Amino acid sequence: MGIISLTTDFGIRDGYVGVMKGVIWGIAPEAKIVDITHLLPAQNVFQGAIALSRVIPYFPPNSVHVAVVDPGVGTNRRPVAARIGDHFFVAPDNGLLSLVVNKALENDQPVKFVHLDRPKYWLKDISHVFHGRDIFSPVGAHLSNGISLEEIGSPINDPILINFPEPEVMENKIIGEVISIDNFGNLATNIFQSHLGNFGNNVIVCVQDHEIDGLIKTFGEKPVGSLVAMLGTQHDLIIARVNQNAQLLTGAKIGDKVVVERES
Amino acid sequence: MGIISLTTDFGIRDGYVGVMKGVIWGIAPEAKIVDITHLLPAQNVFQGAIALSRVIPYFPPNSVHVAVVDPGVGTNRRPVAARIGDHFFVAPDNGLLSLVVNKALENDQPVKFVHLDRPKYWLKDISHVFHGRDIFSPVGAHLSNGISLEEIGSPINDPILINFPEPEVMENKIIGEVISIDNFGNLATNIFQSHLGNFGNNVIVCVQDHEIDGLIKTFGEKPVGSLVAMLGTQHDLIIARVNQNAQLLTGAKIGDKVVVERES
Amino acid sequence: MGIISLTTDFGIRDGYVGVMKGVIWGIAPEAKIVDITHLLPAQNVFQGAIALSRVIPYFPPNSVHVAVVDPGVGTNRRPVAARIGDHFFVAPDNGLLSLVVNKALENDQPVKFVHLDRPKYWLKDISHVFHGRDIFSPVGAHLSNGISLEEIGSPINDPILINFPEPEVMENKIIGEVISIDNFGNLATNIFQSHLGNFGNNVIVCVQDHEIDGLIKTFGEKPVGSLVAMLGTQHDLIIARVNQNAQLLTGAKIGDKVVVERES
Repeated sequence: MGIISLTTDFGIRDGYVGVMKGVIWGIAPEAKIVDITHLLPAQNVFQGAIALSRVIPYFPPNSVHVAVVDPGVGTNRRPVAARIGDHFFVAPDNGLLSLVVNKALENDQPVKFVHLDRPKYWLKDISHVFHGRDIFSPVGAHLSNGISLEEIGSPINDPILINFPEPEVMENKIIGEVISIDNFGNLATNIFQSHLGNFGNNVIVCVQDHEIDGLIKTFGEKPVGSLVAMLGTQHDLIIARVNQNAQLLTGAKIGDKVVVERES
Repeated sequence: MGIISLTTDFGIRDGYVGVMKGVIWGIAPEAKIVDITHLLPAQNVFQGAIALSRVIPYFPPNSVHVAVVDPGVGTNRRPVAARIGDHFFVAPDNGLLSLVVNKALENDQPVKFVHLDRPKYWLKDISHVFHGRDIFSPVGAHLSNGISLEEIGSPINDPILINFPEPEVMENKIIGEVISIDNFGNLATNIFQSHLGNFGNNVIVCVQDHEIDGLIKTFGEKPVGSLVAMLGTQHDLIIARVNQNAQLLTGAKIGDKVVVERES
Repeated sequence: MGIISLTTDFGIRDGYVGVMKGVIWGIAPEAKIVDITHLLPAQNVFQGAIALSRVIPYFPPNSVHVAVVDPGVGTNRRPVAARIGDHFFVAPDNGLLSLVVNKALENDQPVKFVHLDRPKYWLKDISHVFHGRDIFSPVGAHLSNGISLEEIGSPINDPILINFPEPEVMENKIIGEVISIDNFGNLATNIFQSHLGNFGNNVIVCVQDHEIDGLIKTFGEKPVGSLVAMLGTQHDLIIARVNQNAQLLTGAKIGDKVVVERES
């Protein structure tokens, strides 16, 4: 009955995701499986962490989220499972869950990690290259079946967490950066509504050589093709182009500086 | 137990579709969700309408179809739901359902639209940029749960409908156009079996600089690489290349003229 | 309640896969449907056969696998269904199930084929171009509902099987080839652990102009960017580049020779 979400960099061409679902349904035949994305940039833990943080709040409590971006597969990096807020997670211990952990801690929600050290909850035959199939999927299925976190692994207190760039917030200026770029070419930044607080909408937003005058609320306020700044799906400052592609226009890349200045 | 289909231009890279499924299952935990496509050309309402019209007839009655190609998101374009034939639809009011409406009217089936003006059936927190997540998915889930159309919004009689190009049918000639091109490079036209009526198979079909002599029934009638004309998956005239790609050969684009002439 | 997997070359852009799911749920409303891949190279039966052989062992018994790579659609190539080992299959009769059949025969498992010659188990209206929708999906759904193989078609003993390249295994040398290349750029070969038997790890592996010294067990043994040889997800010899793309580095293509030599 439970939901199991899958987030990976496996692509959708080679059957790697299909095989994970076969494994899951072999253990938890009633699980409802949903793909978040399988097109994360290969081995990019940072983008994986961002993707997870955006979707988790929209899933029902007790969902199990299996996330696999795993440059260290087969090495001694630990496989882990976690209870974070009211969701379960299964992932390699490499920082992939960092943003979800940060949000939970900000909201005083519980965070518990275990090291997946009990092969009885894995497939019998473990490859050195595909723990998504051999370890993470079966563990996700067992959690969905109600096996407890304590039963499935041994508690640890030192999961790997990675730092995300924080914007620099000054009295009349915020310096942030582009942290992701979507399929439409919208640039998402690490500047959130909370940072913008008392700046209001009369600001200048700069990215690359472009200056955008003022924040708008909806695309409809400006003509097609205008470069605009507004709050996005995450209450984050985004830079977009009305019905067109802001990345193509600006040439912006992940990591590029974005500056917000109070209009003088 | 009901089926909810999703048709969007969101792409499959950014988790936008996954999050819609999380929202749906939070409201309708038993819904079966199916992706029609998420790779519609960005903001192309016309291609979205075509895609919908092709798949709906193959779904069981009372399925709910959530369709989001939404260049006007956040403006005063209305969100709508509809009962069209024996299916339910949820979409922005921009013409996306036009072809489904046309087919229903041709078959004397009921068409009822409501304006989605009741926030109690939406998420609490509505962004200005992602009504697929915040309005359309929750409304689709409530319809799947059995909430009535009348309950979910206020009746309207003026949904936006867009016109689709009709072929010009003369005594010895039909002038139509390419309306979509699929993944295999097959060119689909707006000329249907019904238009071809008494033309028979002895026709010349022209597209770009290419002339095709006669209609065939199956790819097997001609050698690999032949450019052929035949009836496609929709009883529509298609131009294809046996086991190869007709778009690459002909350079045809959507909107290109296609002429059928009685062989003299 | 049963699982139905789908493996095709239909792409995910045009709604072809979505419509198959609509058809399936119209007949078998409780079926759980899973996508293996829809991005097989167009009309490439060989790659389809490889993809199937890799995922089937991970699915629960009695799963139904609908596989459609169908260059002969609409010709007199037969549509077939089969019981192979403890799984059901539905496919065009063109060799797509060859590797699954080979594995079953090696393990003394049953292999039974039937010719799908009973239109009562198909859609009413059969196109000449889309048997995935009109024949294979409905038959898969009926099998999932418990209709027997004997009931759904007439037994045949001559399904088309295609040969796969076998490596040449000599005393100090194995000559194999690249049989597939995945999304990460890993090169998979037709040389398996069983062929490597008494060679041990002290071997030289050659592909294109590259020589790799020794087999490793896990990516972590070598620095990022190293070209390595190791056992892959199928206990097959693969050539990979640590956290990078071996195909881009080597320029290798499917069919390229791969030579393993005992280190002297």
